[in-house]
Amino acid sequence: MDRIRVSVVGGTGYTGVELLRLLARHPFVQVDHITSRGEVGKSVSSLFPNLRGIYDEPFSEPDAEKLAESDVVFFATPNGTAMRYAPQLLQKGCRVIDLAADFRLTDVESWQQWYGMQHACAELVPEAVYGLPEINREKIAGARLVANPGCYPTSSILGLLPLLQAGLVVTDGLVIDGKSGVSGAGRGASVAGLMSENGESFKAYAIPGHRHQPEICQLLSQISGHPVSLVFVPHLLPMIRGIEATLYARLKDHSEQDLQALFEQHYADEPFVDVMPAGSHPETRSVRGVNHCRIAVHRPLDGDFVVVSSVIDNLVKGAAGQAVQNMNIMFALDETAGLQQVALLP
Amino acid sequence: MDRIRVSVVGGTGYTGVELLRLLARHPFVQVDHITSRGEVGKSVSSLFPNLRGIYDEPFSEPDAEKLAESDVVFFATPNGTAMRYAPQLLQKGCRVIDLAADFRLTDVESWQQWYGMQHACAELVPEAVYGLPEINREKIAGARLVANPGCYPTSSILGLLPLLQAGLVVTDGLVIDGKSGVSGAGRGASVAGLMSENGESFKAYAIPGHRHQPEICQLLSQISGHPVSLVFVPHLLPMIRGIEATLYARLKDHSEQDLQALFEQHYADEPFVDVMPAGSHPETRSVRGVNHCRIAVHRPLDGDFVVVSSVIDNLVKGAAGQAVQNMNIMFALDETAGLQQVALLP
Amino acid sequence: MDRIRVSVVGGTGYTGVELLRLLARHPFVQVDHITSRGEVGKSVSSLFPNLRGIYDEPFSEPDAEKLAESDVVFFATPNGTAMRYAPQLLQKGCRVIDLAADFRLTDVESWQQWYGMQHACAELVPEAVYGLPEINREKIAGARLVANPGCYPTSSILGLLPLLQAGLVVTDGLVIDGKSGVSGAGRGASVAGLMSENGESFKAYAIPGHRHQPEICQLLSQISGHPVSLVFVPHLLPMIRGIEATLYARLKDHSEQDLQALFEQHYADEPFVDVMPAGSHPETRSVRGVNHCRIAVHRPLDGDFVVVSSVIDNLVKGAAGQAVQNMNIMFALDETAGLQQVALLP
Amino acid sequence: MDRIRVSVVGGTGYTGVELLRLLARHPFVQVDHITSRGEVGKSVSSLFPNLRGIYDEPFSEPDAEKLAESDVVFFATPNGTAMRYAPQLLQKGCRVIDLAADFRLTDVESWQQWYGMQHACAELVPEAVYGLPEINREKIAGARLVANPGCYPTSSILGLLPLLQAGLVVTDGLVIDGKSGVSGAGRGASVAGLMSENGESFKAYAIPGHRHQPEICQLLSQISGHPVSLVFVPHLLPMIRGIEATLYARLKDHSEQDLQALFEQHYADEPFVDVMPAGSHPETRSVRGVNHCRIAVHRPLDGDFVVVSSVIDNLVKGAAGQAVQNMNIMFALDETAGLQQVALLP
Repeated sequence: MDRIRVSVVGGTGYTGVELLRLLARHPFVQVDHITSRGEVGKSVSSLFPNLRGIYDEPFSEPDAEKLAESDVVFFATPNGTAMRYAPQLLQKGCRVIDLAADFRLTDVESWQQWYGMQHACAELVPEAVYGLPEINREKIAGARLVANPGCYPTSSILGLLPLLQAGLVVTDGLVIDGKSGVSGAGRGASVAGLMSENGESFKAYAIPGHRHQPEICQLLSQISGHPVSLVFVPHLLPMIRGIEATLYARLKDHSEQDLQALFEQHYADEPFVDVMPAGSHPETRSVRGVNHCRIAVHRPLDGDFVVVSSVIDNLVKGAAGQAVQNMNIMFALDETAGLQQVALLP
Repeated sequence: MDRIRVSVVGGTGYTGVELLRLLARHPFVQVDHITSRGEVGKSVSSLFPNLRGIYDEPFSEPDAEKLAESDVVFFATPNGTAMRYAPQLLQKGCRVIDLAADFRLTDVESWQQWYGMQHACAELVPEAVYGLPEINREKIAGARLVANPGCYPTSSILGLLPLLQAGLVVTDGLVIDGKSGVSGAGRGASVAGLMSENGESFKAYAIPGHRHQPEICQLLSQISGHPVSLVFVPHLLPMIRGIEATLYARLKDHSEQDLQALFEQHYADEPFVDVMPAGSHPETRSVRGVNHCRIAVHRPLDGDFVVVSSVIDNLVKGAAGQAVQNMNIMFALDETAGLQQVALLP
Repeated sequence: MDRIRVSVVGGTGYTGVELLRLLARHPFVQVDHITSRGEVGKSVSSLFPNLRGIYDEPFSEPDAEKLAESDVVFFATPNGTAMRYAPQLLQKGCRVIDLAADFRLTDVESWQQWYGMQHACAELVPEAVYGLPEINREKIAGARLVANPGCYPTSSILGLLPLLQAGLVVTDGLVIDGKSGVSGAGRGASVAGLMSENGESFKAYAIPGHRHQPEICQLLSQISGHPVSLVFVPHLLPMIRGIEATLYARLKDHSEQDLQALFEQHYADEPFVDVMPAGSHPETRSVRGVNHCRIAVHRPLDGDFVVVSSVIDNLVKGAAGQAVQNMNIMFALDETAGLQQVALLP
Repeated sequence: MDRIRVSVVGGTGYTGVELLRLLARHPFVQVDHITSRGEVGKSVSSLFPNLRGIYDEPFSEPDAEKLAESDVVFFATPNGTAMRYAPQLLQKGCRVIDLAADFRLTDVESWQQWYGMQHACAELVPEAVYGLPEINREKIAGARLVANPGCYPTSSILGLLPLLQAGLVVTDGLVIDGKSGVSGAGRGASVAGLMSENGESFKAYAIPGHRHQPEICQLLSQISGHPVSLVFVPHLLPMIRGIEATLYARLKDHSEQDLQALFEQHYADEPFVDVMPAGSHPETRSVRGVNHCRIAVHRPLDGDFVVVSSVIDNLVKGAAGQAVQNMNIMFALDETAGLQQVALLP
């Protein structure tokens, strides 16, 4: 079989290097171009010594003509980049997976407010498929343009999906308390990101409103079939990789619904969602470096709250791994190809 | 003025060594005895080199007769210890501050269920004062026996107090998402507490029910004047000191109540509660090593949820510092005596 | 091709779980037995959730009869265990790789002093091959019994090997300053290993003498062809995985020897030793989870000291990965089989 | 007694905020001005919430006229700043303590090479006193201009001082292996300082040559009375505060010199140097937030190497604390005034 030809735009951020790590050992892929405006000419492995001997070629200038030679182009770029390349690439028959947010919100007005810029190709937004395979597997298979989900949305939606689909919980007033490692803030120089600022400390951030709020809200509303209201507060963990979301919902009635069975059945055939045994508390390290989401469902003190704890690696299932999973689906490959690592523990 | 004579029972745990750190520089205190069953004869500073030159005397066997010579005895011991000494000490005119949970719950039945043991002196429970000065300052001043609050309860109650006292929020279905550094788990040998198990990872724990739940519930109900229902989920942070509690409550109506002003006025005269400016996100490091609780209040997306983020150092305002604050009040000292350190940042 | 049948004795420590992680994706291996005296009957994945869906079978009791059905048995056990099983297993034609220290020192007297026990099969010591492929590849290929090197020795010896073999440095008074992540201390319950004890702190340990000293000394002396004297001080890092060794040696003369070229040539054909470009400073994270040793060689201020910085993952090249590499060599497999992961960065 | 009036130039870096923390509770000091070019008008406590309620006034523009009203001005600035203000301040009778490197090297040529700039007031260099009280206490008492030592030099020199002064070790080829927390790299925005880059990893840096090398060399040569040669390699720890230096020297002869007694006697009267009991391994956390240097001396395997492990808090004894100690000496205050905190452990 011919290998799929892929290119990576924006290979110098953390989602970029993680994508390269996964693609390096993908059995059905060949990497064409790795671009970076800022590091043109520098070898990839000089920036990321874990890639020595694998990607020793230089970063290239992003060039739509050349990129279009690939079967698929990943954008591991800041928000607002993919939308400037997508029309041309799609036109030339190349598919696009955007790891940023350009195509995640169906409401362009709302997107423009949350992201503070004009959308460059609003006409493509309706076509874009939200790349969460556990919801949209079939649409992804036929997609030209995939909006790879955000990290908090992935962990939150997967944790609430069985409850909302079964219509078991009150959808007004969901509470999502998310915690992320610092790699989620990216690889830009900043005081706020220094180890001296983040180590041995913890805080909430963006309590007034975070961009992942409308994304989560949109998806949960689609799943529920009616508008959902929620409050979402993200927090910054003194560690590098991993997201945990603790999800709080109230049961509509106190019936003896077996929540554990509900979750296990819902995800029985999913290769990357692992429902932990009853009574479990998933640790982020159990998914370090892998594409899994591990979930536990509880009913504290047998009350009317259901609490779900959901963990992912923000750079894998929350970004690069999910992008590879989407690519696998788009190209009818084994969905787990290149994603069969075992999490690094301890 | 004569110095107050104090003894510390259980000086080998983290709350014990923290208490010794604070007492070491307290201007009005003299330490009589530092006991430890397990380390009798070993010098305090050989275990805790930060105390070299300050407490070089040996740990002694706990002996009620000797302890009673002190004006006040702190119990920095496991649950179930203070209750065995308190009757004798009180009878001899010595006061008692228990940093553990023996006297926190007014409902002895409930206490026995949550803590899995018989209470040794249930008759003293009604007399014990819950040592949260921001609620019980006057009672503490006259108390013989003080139940020092738990760490999660301190951060949670202080964050919700102004809202509940003003009657602004729905008290059915409060959500408390707490996160603690690992020092909260104590200094016992365990696999679960190893750095290899806790570093670079994050998880929820005790979702089915945690002992601080009834404690928080009891206090919030007292404050509200009616039963409060809540869900509380604690989490373990990959760091040593600090607790952050994110508190979610729904406003009863969407009136234009100025929550920032409410909090600022409520805590205007409190020496150890700092209401941060509007829009803030308190960091645990801003209270590292000090007795302060820093609080920010938000109303995300102008919706009907109010979200409070509250941080303390679990070993100071969540344990040893609050115990010293209580002692200061009990002995009519300046409430801030010995507690005027500046937090260590970075 | 038939898969090689392997068993793992002592699957509950950190080298054990790491071995299982690597064997799980090894293309030519089938795992027969995973034993643990302490956890018999418990499923492997219940202890290590990263292995869910991979090793869900229970730990079994170690039984020499059953183990001998395997082609090779790995001992990821405390010191003193492998030596009790090895004679019986070898006799039955099974090969043995000991990740502990039982067969590392050729001088049994010295071993007994350093390890504080009688050796149970001193007669096998001369046959055991020290499993550092970069020195002993051919002997390993023919070995029945391999002594997998210690973590500090691996990083130290690989860093000094080209210098000693070329006879360029004074071999009296080598200085080895090693730093290790806490996973090197194992998974036993202890106060000393708590995160509250190790986080945000750093210290030397075992300055009076560490068991890896005679091991390093033995190997460096073999390489040099004459007795070498050295001082070795290990340190404990506030992190989980990784060893860095900074190696100091004095050049015999100030000739213009090109040390960079020497190292590059020496390791040109080694799949797992990466000589970094001149001027580099290898980071432990660049080998996180992989079997590589990355090395940089310097001559500070053009003086007569040569300084080598050498990094490995103590659990991989320093333990489980090297054990798999040895197995690959012993069974004439591709030496890199099952060891082609890319390091997790960040 | 009138309080000493002090000003702090460069209050936004980590040594600046640490200085403010210490000055805040100093019993004999009044802070006049806190300057920052970059943050003029912003309140100090808005940047550093640990200082809320203590320094709520704004940062001011540095102005030599106003600064000269103080009795002493601390420069917690980048290299090259103090030398531009010092002449004017000294002329007006104000004393100067530079926490940066402008006046540390007596050889101006060498300084200019290492620091890559012209010295602005070379004529003052001979007058400047190297502010290590354990060596220069009397000179400091009479100094107008103090060069506060570097962090690595402080830990290294204090560890070697008794050996060199007693003439016990070979002074050709000393090895200094230093490890520092990331706060030593300052509070500037950078990719290299991100937590995602530094967390859970370790590396050497500046092996070809570090600016603290000539500083250490100068002082050790002064102490020895003849030129000393050494190799110094610094390393970056995945933690915030603390330096450990492991110092290797060869004994001139194998006599039965009691090194423990030598160190204990040498430092018997020093308030801030603590010689640990024989066999100890000092931890950086034992000096977290305090001005102490803790030292242990060993003779590994009774060989001819003496190994000293020396720990300080790089921001306290390695910077701000030592500056306060110097001020205390310069103004004939109790040397420990404002420096009597107890280290934060755990």
